[in-house]
Amino acid sequence: MSRFLSAAFAGLKPYVPGEQPQDQQYIKLNTNESPYPPAPEVARLLSSTDAAVLRLYSDPESRELCREIADFYGVGVENVFVGNGSDEVLAFAFQAYGKGKPMAFPDITYGFYKVFAGLYDIKTRIVPLDDEFSIRASDYLQPGENVVIANPNAITGKKLPLAEVERILQAHPDDVVIVDEAYVDFGGVSAAALIGSYDNLLVVQTFSKSRQLAGARVGLALAQPGLIADLNTIKFSFNPYNVNRLSCMLAAAAIRDRDYFAECCAKIIADRAYTAQALQELGFEVLPSTANFLLARREGLAGERYYQALKERGILVRWFDEERIRDFVRITIGTHNEMLTMLDATREILQAEGV
Amino acid sequence: MSRFLSAAFAGLKPYVPGEQPQDQQYIKLNTNESPYPPAPEVARLLSSTDAAVLRLYSDPESRELCREIADFYGVGVENVFVGNGSDEVLAFAFQAYGKGKPMAFPDITYGFYKVFAGLYDIKTRIVPLDDEFSIRASDYLQPGENVVIANPNAITGKKLPLAEVERILQAHPDDVVIVDEAYVDFGGVSAAALIGSYDNLLVVQTFSKSRQLAGARVGLALAQPGLIADLNTIKFSFNPYNVNRLSCMLAAAAIRDRDYFAECCAKIIADRAYTAQALQELGFEVLPSTANFLLARREGLAGERYYQALKERGILVRWFDEERIRDFVRITIGTHNEMLTMLDATREILQAEGV
Repeated sequence: MSRFLSAAFAGLKPYVPGEQPQDQQYIKLNTNESPYPPAPEVARLLSSTDAAVLRLYSDPESRELCREIADFYGVGVENVFVGNGSDEVLAFAFQAYGKGKPMAFPDITYGFYKVFAGLYDIKTRIVPLDDEFSIRASDYLQPGENVVIANPNAITGKKLPLAEVERILQAHPDDVVIVDEAYVDFGGVSAAALIGSYDNLLVVQTFSKSRQLAGARVGLALAQPGLIADLNTIKFSFNPYNVNRLSCMLAAAAIRDRDYFAECCAKIIADRAYTAQALQELGFEVLPSTANFLLARREGLAGERYYQALKERGILVRWFDEERIRDFVRITIGTHNEMLTMLDATREILQAEGV
Repeated sequence: MSRFLSAAFAGLKPYVPGEQPQDQQYIKLNTNESPYPPAPEVARLLSSTDAAVLRLYSDPESRELCREIADFYGVGVENVFVGNGSDEVLAFAFQAYGKGKPMAFPDITYGFYKVFAGLYDIKTRIVPLDDEFSIRASDYLQPGENVVIANPNAITGKKLPLAEVERILQAHPDDVVIVDEAYVDFGGVSAAALIGSYDNLLVVQTFSKSRQLAGARVGLALAQPGLIADLNTIKFSFNPYNVNRLSCMLAAAAIRDRDYFAECCAKIIADRAYTAQALQELGFEVLPSTANFLLARREGLAGERYYQALKERGILVRWFDEERIRDFVRITIGTHNEMLTMLDATREILQAEGV
């Protein structure tokens, strides 16, 4: 950092994204991307789009994309906001609601919440997951603070039943409850159906996982028009053309193809079940996941060692050097063949390590 | 806005972007886009890229693009930062340096500076341009405040000589001086050559104007590694994958084609000279512009009326309902034929209005 940087940021610890190796080919099971390409219409659009459209700014209201999203979720276009990935959407929400009010979230969850709080100088109340690594709704019923929960929870993959989400919403009539549903399409239940009933609910989703568009950067929020207007206030004070022209078009095409979406999600879910069982048969403890990843640990095999040994065999998974989860690795669900390769490597590692 | 929005933002006035009509075809001379398509290699890349690459996140360090930019400017890759449009780059800079130090900028300039200051709660010192609508460097020599100037200046198109930029830099050894060069390629002189000499200089540029990629959203900053590190601290605490995968690729291709870039800039410069002279012959006052637009006014023809009359004839220009420039309209330089059409319409309007 330079000597000019505001003192307010002296202690800011930026987020550390998972490795995106540019040099070597890995089986990449470390950042929860989809192993499948985007919907066929996305490819067709990409190859047939006239590059000349890029000379013009995108529609700052991203109307076409918002209409498609509204149509998919059965809500009004006034209930939809889109951003440059759900990270941007979450950041806008933290900025909009965080000043002067603490934000509560679990100790083990998406690591960015803590970073956003640092960036916007927001007080936090960090609540330990229970011993089974579950969120307890009863820990979040204290009014006067905003709440953000990932559902299914990041890193663990465990979901919170919708009735429990509703308990939290009801306890916070004057606070905002952000439900980050990045992984909801792999077996979770969306709170989107609740936005009509709760003006304090902000549902955040992404095109990066279940819609195969991590590289296009499109995230979205669903809420009543008041919260959507707040996000637009921040966006139009920051970067009105936040979603680029191609991403708007491609994401609209992706969400239109409901069959392909359902098919890809079903494959992930089936391979998740297959992989979880195979790991359990190898002696792993695997948290029950409704996301596109598994959090797993094996007695006698340190998380870091397992991560390293897989990497040496050309397979990238994610290991977090953090309390309570240091023994685990997080494994993204890839194609069936990738999972077979990962399981073979795991057998080899267990043998080599003598466990 | 909702009742939940932080009180800090109650008075925030978001930026109002120029119209991006989706319904009707206009000759679009209102948001300083290029009338030319991106470089041929951009089109080739776009049509030949496998959509499957979009399933993966972009490189959070945007290394390929940063290398191409460094190569073009003859600087090190450690001197380059890229963002989701130069608006994002500017926002990061305001956020990084604005806390606890006022930001000085002209009364007539890019309207977003005031908005960023509102968003990040930054004190401003707003300095009137002189009577010829020029920035006076002598107004910005007071240490203890950061400075942002657009050079050439937005809205006016007038440039500040590099020696004057250097005077400002020398007066601010402990403050940051942001030089926003969105329009520099149309006849300005970049301060990029000074970054080796001044650790307080942040040069910001964009791919939206002279590189025909407004719709791809790519902006950049050039500076010593300290300031670049600061911008990365903000970025990695906000949205690490801020530039999407396609835009990284396409922008890298755009900056590689130096001949096409030079040719398009030369055409804009020639048509600017032609248009300025034609307007002067019609009795307009035209500020001397080194940007891809002209700020012009005509006695007897109110700026708003001229804007409206052009719009009725299918031509969009930009009118600002702001003190000192209410009489003017800002006209982006389009193709030669578009300028001829605009000039014909102007003759018709002058006749119809009886001036």
